[in-house]
Amino acid sequence: MFTPLDTQMMQNALALARLGRFSTSPNPRVGCVIARGGQVVGQGFHVRAGEPHAEVHALRQAGNAAKGATAYVTLEPCSHYGRTPPCAQALIQAGVARVIAAMVDPNPQVAGKGLAMLEAAGIQTASGLLEAEARELNRGFLSRIERGRPFVKLKCAASLDGKTALSDGRSQWITGEAAREDVQVLRAESCAVLTGVGTVLADNPRLDVRSFPTLRQPARIILDSRLQTPLSSRLVSDGIAPTVIATLESDEGRLKNYRDRDHVRIIRPSENGRGRIDLADLLNRLAAEGIGELMAEAGATLASAFIEADLVDEIVLYQAPKILGNPGRGLFTLPEKPAALAGESRWRTHAVEMLGQDVKWTLRCG
Amino acid sequence: MFTPLDTQMMQNALALARLGRFSTSPNPRVGCVIARGGQVVGQGFHVRAGEPHAEVHALRQAGNAAKGATAYVTLEPCSHYGRTPPCAQALIQAGVARVIAAMVDPNPQVAGKGLAMLEAAGIQTASGLLEAEARELNRGFLSRIERGRPFVKLKCAASLDGKTALSDGRSQWITGEAAREDVQVLRAESCAVLTGVGTVLADNPRLDVRSFPTLRQPARIILDSRLQTPLSSRLVSDGIAPTVIATLESDEGRLKNYRDRDHVRIIRPSENGRGRIDLADLLNRLAAEGIGELMAEAGATLASAFIEADLVDEIVLYQAPKILGNPGRGLFTLPEKPAALAGESRWRTHAVEMLGQDVKWTLRCG
Repeated sequence: MFTPLDTQMMQNALALARLGRFSTSPNPRVGCVIARGGQVVGQGFHVRAGEPHAEVHALRQAGNAAKGATAYVTLEPCSHYGRTPPCAQALIQAGVARVIAAMVDPNPQVAGKGLAMLEAAGIQTASGLLEAEARELNRGFLSRIERGRPFVKLKCAASLDGKTALSDGRSQWITGEAAREDVQVLRAESCAVLTGVGTVLADNPRLDVRSFPTLRQPARIILDSRLQTPLSSRLVSDGIAPTVIATLESDEGRLKNYRDRDHVRIIRPSENGRGRIDLADLLNRLAAEGIGELMAEAGATLASAFIEADLVDEIVLYQAPKILGNPGRGLFTLPEKPAALAGESRWRTHAVEMLGQDVKWTLRCG
Repeated sequence: MFTPLDTQMMQNALALARLGRFSTSPNPRVGCVIARGGQVVGQGFHVRAGEPHAEVHALRQAGNAAKGATAYVTLEPCSHYGRTPPCAQALIQAGVARVIAAMVDPNPQVAGKGLAMLEAAGIQTASGLLEAEARELNRGFLSRIERGRPFVKLKCAASLDGKTALSDGRSQWITGEAAREDVQVLRAESCAVLTGVGTVLADNPRLDVRSFPTLRQPARIILDSRLQTPLSSRLVSDGIAPTVIATLESDEGRLKNYRDRDHVRIIRPSENGRGRIDLADLLNRLAAEGIGELMAEAGATLASAFIEADLVDEIVLYQAPKILGNPGRGLFTLPEKPAALAGESRWRTHAVEMLGQDVKWTLRCG
């Protein structure tokens, strides 16, 4: 059904879509190529929410050359009026003969209606070309739409002997510059970065992307059951990106101090029965707010709680060629799992690479 | 001085030398190519001690074609009568015009005398072509000759969270089949495999190469200060390879029980002042016995003692995508090293790769 030329054009469209990986949130990353045979006549990608979709950029470039051409899109063209008119309509008006989508858009507002609209207009359509790559590209968006929770990636840093910090808590800097630079990329790709109030109190982090320019900063989420985040902390005072404090605190007077800051919002997930925030409920609420790709930069306790609740989709472990010795702090506070020794692991090694002297190990769940 | 053709021929010689990596111990791995311009007329490698050197195999194949040719050898040709006559003499008799060695042989019996003998016969000589590769190939032999101790590689296996075993000591099998197969290769490359009596008592291992055929088995070294190795243990009873027990025990009656086994030898290194075997002295004695490449497959205590004594040249860490949890056993029992956190590490990442689902991380010291 798909020719080698189709595959090549869709690869081009995917490469274009990836150009939006730091900026489209909460929208998906989408690329579009319009071609007549092997000749590309238009191409584009979605840059950020509120701006034109990929198809619109590509059609503008193609102009009259779009007539009779094939449009390759990494996600089904939209069929609804959102902040922009439906792309399916624009493709029909431009007179394309064929539309190939890498995947159907699971967003209930689209969900096949875009392709149906095209077919009703006599345009030949197909989907499923390089679908796995397209799904990988939008794993956050898809998780939010399909599972009602973000794709959660947990970042960890440890020594060769599995220590994240000295026994006195010092941890700067276990990993080298290349690994820290890579963390900046992970942040930039994320809709939001989540941490615990313990980290806020200990390190007063900014959790921003600062080693290269980006069109948007990820939101910052603080898990803070008892609302201990200092008003003077960077996340509350700096205003460079939205900050969401998830808390169980209900005292409106206390909450108001935070709500007074324009960029700070409070959410109140349910309690888990042990005086803590219910993490599954938290994730549902974050997804409802448009957070698709969530990066957790948390201490051992919070990281372990996410793992124990089976809510981590990817672990990215940066490991430095250093031996910190004992006692030192371990990666997780999880109880022993004898079944993990000889059995099939829930974790699969997705990739491993050297970053300077450090090792970056990416693991996926399931 | 060296042409691209020279480099290519020496690469061929190095590839030949590597064919002997499981079998030449205690001799070095050596390859030889004899060429007339770009035409190889003879090639060979040293297979095992007592058999002809690489040059002899290559000269036999070349026959009269060796006259006026260039010989490429990965190690300076020998100049002394050992178990075979000197190769420098054989090259002279064959009438080669030029000899290029990757490196001078640091063995005091040779140490430049081979090249000098060739020059005295009017043969053009040079050395230092791909020397780093040649040194890497014979790191064990060179360590034994130059430093008077073996090149020590420490093998470790751990989970993602740095645990080597459950709290009850169970560790089979943290890593998968591909990693265990790789350990067989590390063993086969080693002159000897070293372990502690604790491992002998707990696991009764064989420490042999059994997943592929080899011309020789590595010797097995047991660190056993108080001579607790059971006479019924596999290492004492199986006879498939030499077993060396290093002990502080001096009771001749007790020692005799072990010495009665043909393949078992006892060595008595000095005591370190804390009732333990002095590891540096142990390594000196092992080198004196011809052990150049030594693989340590030890528990956390012995591994840590080697690291603490600064006697480990390479760590090979196999890490599985499993979380074993706490308490579990850690990789090392070393005390905390605050200086290791932010400072330059003594360890450098040499290589990292995936083996099935596991990660193989090779680190070098210095």
